[in-house]
Amino acid sequence: MARVSQEHLDARRRQILDGAAVCFARNGFHATSMQDVLKEVDLSAGAVYRYFSGKEELIGAIVAEVLDTVGTLYEAAARETPPPTPDVLLPRVMARMREVRPGMLEHGEWVFPRLMVQVWAETLRNPELAAVLRSGFDRVRAAWSQLVEVYKEAGLMPPDADADAVARVMIALLQGFGVQFALFGAASERTLRDGLRALLSMGESSDGS
Amino acid sequence: MARVSQEHLDARRRQILDGAAVCFARNGFHATSMQDVLKEVDLSAGAVYRYFSGKEELIGAIVAEVLDTVGTLYEAAARETPPPTPDVLLPRVMARMREVRPGMLEHGEWVFPRLMVQVWAETLRNPELAAVLRSGFDRVRAAWSQLVEVYKEAGLMPPDADADAVARVMIALLQGFGVQFALFGAASERTLRDGLRALLSMGESSDGS
Repeated sequence: MARVSQEHLDARRRQILDGAAVCFARNGFHATSMQDVLKEVDLSAGAVYRYFSGKEELIGAIVAEVLDTVGTLYEAAARETPPPTPDVLLPRVMARMREVRPGMLEHGEWVFPRLMVQVWAETLRNPELAAVLRSGFDRVRAAWSQLVEVYKEAGLMPPDADADAVARVMIALLQGFGVQFALFGAASERTLRDGLRALLSMGESSDGS
Repeated sequence: MARVSQEHLDARRRQILDGAAVCFARNGFHATSMQDVLKEVDLSAGAVYRYFSGKEELIGAIVAEVLDTVGTLYEAAARETPPPTPDVLLPRVMARMREVRPGMLEHGEWVFPRLMVQVWAETLRNPELAAVLRSGFDRVRAAWSQLVEVYKEAGLMPPDADADAVARVMIALLQGFGVQFALFGAASERTLRDGLRALLSMGESSDGS
């Protein structure tokens, strides 16, 4: 067997994951066959199976990678001084998600949000995938809770704020934006920023509590 | 044919819709047959087809009804003085969604969030369903924009806030909470309220803009 560089192996792996992501986003996990994936990435079965044993491993790897990227972004945000407020951070995460996987395009359209929706539907009946998703969700949740503690130290949030509740609300926002993007298109970073900014400003005029 | 009261017809229709919702939530739209629905509601084909021509009509009716309920709740909120802030309103809408369809339970679990996820996945490849969803989404968006105008009049939000952006952020929050409920369970009204409240309070300590 010819020696191949790690770079080549990584690029090949990336190519397979992106192609599989496009297939799953297009037709869902259930209706996509490994044959569809081979055709999409234009590689032989041998070349693909060297990396992934099948659809389950592919979808697991895609989900784990996405959640790892998101988790890392929030962990980095918690180390910034001052920490970025949600109206800055969430649009940044959304933009970064686009950049990090340029291969996840079909006809110029960003297919990741469609993939998200397909993955959620599959998760409802696939316990292995549910476990991958839950562990990624828990990591993102922990990273967000950490960030809330930083907000508190910086005096940006009251000391008695429920960090986990904030984490879930923030995660929900990006999940919901993904849904709108997948279903209706045109859910931009700018809309997310402007909507959040208006929301954050409500505290100024309310009594709080 | 025996004469039956409108009340009876409505109850029968409700029974069919709830049974179909439980089936779709369980296995998805694609993998559910009309036979499954008949079995779930324990009615004859004749009795069910008198109301609905098939799966497409069932899912369309379920989605339209849900979005109508949500739209009405926001429209009512815009008429309240003072208008309820998001940390009060969103948990209320979530609670109301549970109450309004008590039949949407399976083994005591609220299946509506699972249904939402299944409907979204189906929407990606079903243009008719996509049209129903979009029209409901536009209505809820318009209702929310109206509410933002009321916030502005009440001095709760700055006059230059982007009403549609706020609408989309608020809708995204409930969509995302639905995802978390469907996938991980235990996404309570209380978590939504506490997370939102902490978020709204951020404006008090930031510079705003």
